[in-house]
Amino acid sequence: MESFSPRMAHLVNALQTLPGVGTKTATRMALYLVHKDRQSGQVLAAALQDAVMNVKSCNLCRNISDTDVCNLCTSSRFQSKQLCVVETPSDVVAIEHSGGFSGKYFVLHGHLSPIDGVGPSELGMDLLEARVIDESLEEVIVATSTTSEGEATAVYISDLFQKTNVVVSRIAHGIPVGGELEYVDMSTISHALRGRTPIDGV
Amino acid sequence: MESFSPRMAHLVNALQTLPGVGTKTATRMALYLVHKDRQSGQVLAAALQDAVMNVKSCNLCRNISDTDVCNLCTSSRFQSKQLCVVETPSDVVAIEHSGGFSGKYFVLHGHLSPIDGVGPSELGMDLLEARVIDESLEEVIVATSTTSEGEATAVYISDLFQKTNVVVSRIAHGIPVGGELEYVDMSTISHALRGRTPIDGV
Repeated sequence: MESFSPRMAHLVNALQTLPGVGTKTATRMALYLVHKDRQSGQVLAAALQDAVMNVKSCNLCRNISDTDVCNLCTSSRFQSKQLCVVETPSDVVAIEHSGGFSGKYFVLHGHLSPIDGVGPSELGMDLLEARVIDESLEEVIVATSTTSEGEATAVYISDLFQKTNVVVSRIAHGIPVGGELEYVDMSTISHALRGRTPIDGV
Repeated sequence: MESFSPRMAHLVNALQTLPGVGTKTATRMALYLVHKDRQSGQVLAAALQDAVMNVKSCNLCRNISDTDVCNLCTSSRFQSKQLCVVETPSDVVAIEHSGGFSGKYFVLHGHLSPIDGVGPSELGMDLLEARVIDESLEEVIVATSTTSEGEATAVYISDLFQKTNVVVSRIAHGIPVGGELEYVDMSTISHALRGRTPIDGV
C-alpha cells in the first residue's frame, strides 16, 4: 500500500497491532474494509472508539464492564457465597458457557509474575480479600492456569485466607471429558491420579 | 462477552466482519484492544474512520488513492507506454515488490462474472479503453488470475483492442522460479510447456 495511499498504509499499520495479525492479513483486512464494505468499516470504527473510551473494570470483580459495577455482580448471584477467581475475562466467558457455576467471579487480569513486575497489588488481591470478607463468602474457587505462575497465584490466594473460615479450593485438573488416556500427556495423568475422588462421592 | 458488557459484545460483532475473523479471534482482539492496549485501539479507530471516509479510487487507474489521481499515475511513469491490468490493489503491491515492472497500472477490482452481475462496466472497461487510446499506450499486459473468470476477462480485454495497434499480452504462467517439476501441478506444467520460449530469446 506504501506508495499509493498513506491513509491505507496507516490503517494497515494500525491493524497490525491486533494479536495474530501480520502485514498480509492487515492488508487484506484494510482492502476489505475500504473497498468492499465501508459500512462495516464505519461500524467497526465507531464500536472500537466507543469500547476503548467507555468500557471500564467492574469495581467489585474487576471484569470488563460498561458500568461501575457489572451486570453479573448486580444480578441475583449477589446472594451466592461462592466466588471463582480467574485470570482473564475470557475465562469468565468459558466458565459461563459451561453452565457449571452460578456464583460470583473475580478477574485477576494476569497471574503473579515478579519478573514482569506483577505483584499482588497489580492483581487486585486487596480488593479480593476485602470482598470475600465484606460479603462473608464461604468458598473461593481458584481457576487460574496450570502454569507455574498460575499455581503460585493459587497458593498465594490460599495463604490469604488461611486464618479465616473461608474454604479455598482449586478446580480439578485431570483427564478431559471424552479424552482417552493414551493421548493425554503424562503431567495431566499424574495430576488426575493425585486428584482422584471416591466413586460414591462426587 | 454477552452478559456483562453490551459495548464489548458490539465490538466483538463488528470485528467479525473482518475477513478470516470468527467469534474467538474477535473476542481475543477486543479484549486485547480494550484491556491491554487502549492507545492502539484509539489509533486503529481513528485510522479506520479516516480511511473509510477519505480513501477513494484513482480516476485514472482505479487503484485506491488518497487523492483524485494516485501517486503512481502522477509519477514519472506517466511517460511509460506500458500498462498492466490487475484484479486487485494487492496485485499492484505484489508486482511493485517484484520490481519487474515500471509502467502504469489499471485495477479492475474483480473479474468478469455475469452470474454475480459483474460485467465490463463494473470493471471500468470503458475507462481502460479510453485511457489506452488517450495516452497512446503501446502494450497492455493482462495479469488477471488464472481462474476461468480471470481468463475470460483477459480474452475480453484482448478483444477490446483487436482493431487497434495496441499489443495485448498475458503474463507467463509456468513453473515458479525455484520450483521443482515433481511438485508442480499438472495444469501448471502443461501451461509452462505451451508457453515455452526459445533459449536465445527471453
